[in-house]
Formats: sequence, structure tokens, C-alpha cells
Amino acid sequence: MGLIAIDVSVSVDGFVAGPNATLEEPLGEGGERLHEWIFGLDAWRERHGLEGGERSVDNDVVESAVARWGAVVMGRKMWSGGWGPWEDDPRADGWWGGEPPFRVPVFVLTHHAREPEVKASTPIEFVTEGIEVALGRALAAAGSRNVLVAGGASVAQQALASGLADELHLHVAPVLLGGGVRLFADGVTATTLERESVIESPAVTHVRYRVRHGPGDA
Amino acid sequence: MGLIAIDVSVSVDGFVAGPNATLEEPLGEGGERLHEWIFGLDAWRERHGLEGGERSVDNDVVESAVARWGAVVMGRKMWSGGWGPWEDDPRADGWWGGEPPFRVPVFVLTHHAREPEVKASTPIEFVTEGIEVALGRALAAAGSRNVLVAGGASVAQQALASGLADELHLHVAPVLLGGGVRLFADGVTATTLERESVIESPAVTHVRYRVRHGPGDA
Repeated sequence: MGLIAIDVSVSVDGFVAGPNATLEEPLGEGGERLHEWIFGLDAWRERHGLEGGERSVDNDVVESAVARWGAVVMGRKMWSGGWGPWEDDPRADGWWGGEPPFRVPVFVLTHHAREPEVKASTPIEFVTEGIEVALGRALAAAGSRNVLVAGGASVAQQALASGLADELHLHVAPVLLGGGVRLFADGVTATTLERESVIESPAVTHVRYRVRHGPGDA
Repeated sequence: MGLIAIDVSVSVDGFVAGPNATLEEPLGEGGERLHEWIFGLDAWRERHGLEGGERSVDNDVVESAVARWGAVVMGRKMWSGGWGPWEDDPRADGWWGGEPPFRVPVFVLTHHAREPEVKASTPIEFVTEGIEVALGRALAAAGSRNVLVAGGASVAQQALASGLADELHLHVAPVLLGGGVRLFADGVTATTLERESVIESPAVTHVRYRVRHGPGDA
């Protein structure tokens, strides 16, 4: 069975979105700065049909994640921002355009039931039964590969609180957003982490932790 | 003139103290885990008259900070925790015992005026006129060396908001505290950082950023 890894970009002051995030603008004010590190990378551009990207250490990090993921779990706001608005309407397709970069099964955690769909090479299911069910289905779909919990904050926190998350991968962007959506709200269970690796570039610091849920999990 | 560096230990979820911090227990519940990385180090033990500490990369980080600091600015809670309670009383001397590790002038930002004092090799002044005055006096005292802003969160935030801080040095301990005192409360001014260096060990990740206050400060 694969691992479950929470994998998110975050500001130095702990925000995954800037102030005034909405379903239409899920990154809020300034939140796109958290993701600037990824857009020029070869591994990212290839997923969007573009060539000639950077082959930096940041690219190695993304390539390694892509090579290991077998399924993705995310919240409705992230889905909505990436694929365009929830309801069909004539606006743009969101930041992933018509071709999501995942190409593995995506499970969207939501309170609103919706029929499964397929966008380009990415099948998408909507899960209303809670985080454990979403993670369980994703593990089954991923086989021996990993489940990536891509955010947002609420889904990441639920995954952590479920006791099922094995790893925490943070991509820390060099910015203080000063407000917005916190990755770790007050009330997250106190948890011991174990550093697995730190990889850094001028654009971003990638920190991987192993999550230790209890004394028996050592 | 030296630089002003905010230099604090923080949890992965952004807390400098755990839940229920008080003047008597300024680190709150679990907050001592943020500082465990430093206690075994040679550079730290030497400052407390002890021998035989570790000479790890973490030790290099502390030695480098000690070699450059010329003055220290901190808040009243930190002073109180380190030197014992504000009023003379028969309890213990706090976590620095009778011999503070600084051996350079310390400026304590407080609303309560108090006469200067000297503890072992460390002269201490109490500043009631605000962060700019505290930083100004510390710069003057430090000469060509750096001013270390040691915390707590309020003093660090005031130093950042003053526009006078040059660097942000975070020592990120591998723990989620789940609550407590946040280093970056909501409302901190949005700020661009520039990564200077990342040094890591299993115990802690040391990240140094240069603070960019505005377009002219590049």
C-alpha cells in the first residue's frame, strides 16, 4: 500500500491562501505568490503540453512527487479554482485549464454530491462521506503508489486529524502574506514530526516530515 | 552599523509557545520542545559553564549567531522566563539561571519602567518608549555587530512592522503544537522575503531570510 502525503505550498507565516479567498478566487490576495515557484518548471510545463522549462532542484522535487502519486485528494475550492466554477458557465476553465496535471484519479471532498467525470486523462470522483472514505478510496485507486493530499487547509487538517496521514510535504515560499487561510488552524492535534529531507532553492524550501501519530508509531 | 535579525524558534504550525502561556510559564504547554535542539550543543553549554556538548551543524548555527550578535532585544515575558519572575521572590532564576548566555547588552521592551541591572556579564536595560527606541539603542550598543531580536512573538512582529528588521532567522522544530502563541498573527504586513540560507539537521531546520520592505529595498 502506498503512503498518504499531505503536500501543500505555504507562506512563511503559514497561509495557503491570502486574505479574502472565495470560491471564484480561492487563492485570495497575493496567494498566487505561493505557487510561482512551480510554473516555470519542466515537470510542470510538460503536464500542460509546454516545453523548455527549468530543470532545477525544484523540478526534481516535482518530478519525484509526480512519479510517486497514484491518486489525489483535494477540497472543493481547490477543484473549483483548478477546473473552473462548480456550475457550468462560460467563464475560464480555472488554473489547470481543460487539462488537469494529475492524470491519476482525483477525489474531491465536498458536501455536494456530483456525478463522476473525466477531464482529459484525469478521472474525478466527488466524495461526500468524509475524509476517511476519500482517503480509503484514494488508497485503493493508488495501488502501491502514494496518495497526495493537495489541500486546501481544511482537507489537510482533516487528513492529519484522521491519523491516516503518513507524511507532510511543505513547499515554503519566501513571502509573508499577513493574513488569509491558515494551513494549521488552532486546534490541530499536537503531533510529533520527524524530518525526512530538506531541499532548498532561492524560490522555495521543500521540507518533508514523517508524521508520528502516537508512541506506537515509531 | 550591524544588521537587525529576528531570531526565533518556532513549530511547524507557527507557534513560539504552546497553549496556556503565562508570565510564570511563558512557553506554555509543550513549548519547551521548540528549544530542545539547542540544549545539548557545545556553544550553548559553554555559555552555561558546561563542557562536552555536541559540535553539529546546529552548533555551527548557534556559534555563528553568537559571534555576530552585539546586542539583544526581547519582550518582558521572555526576560521573565529566562531570569525568573519580575518581582524578587525565592523561586528559581528561570531558564537561564543566574547567568544569561548573552554577555552583550540586552534591551527588554516593556510597559513597566525598571532600573537597569547587570546579571553576570550581561547588562540589561528596560525600554518603555517602544520598539524603534529599543532597536535604536541596541544598534548603538552593538556597534558593527548585529542586533538579535529574540522574541517573543509581539516583539518580533513589532520589529517587522517597524521596517527596521533586516533578516528573519527561523529555527523550525519538527512538531505541531496545535495551539498557543503564533509568531505571525493575522495583520502582519505582507512582506517579500529572500532566502539567504537553509541549514538542516534531524533536530531542526534553520532558515534565514532577508526582509524586503519595499520596492526600493532590493
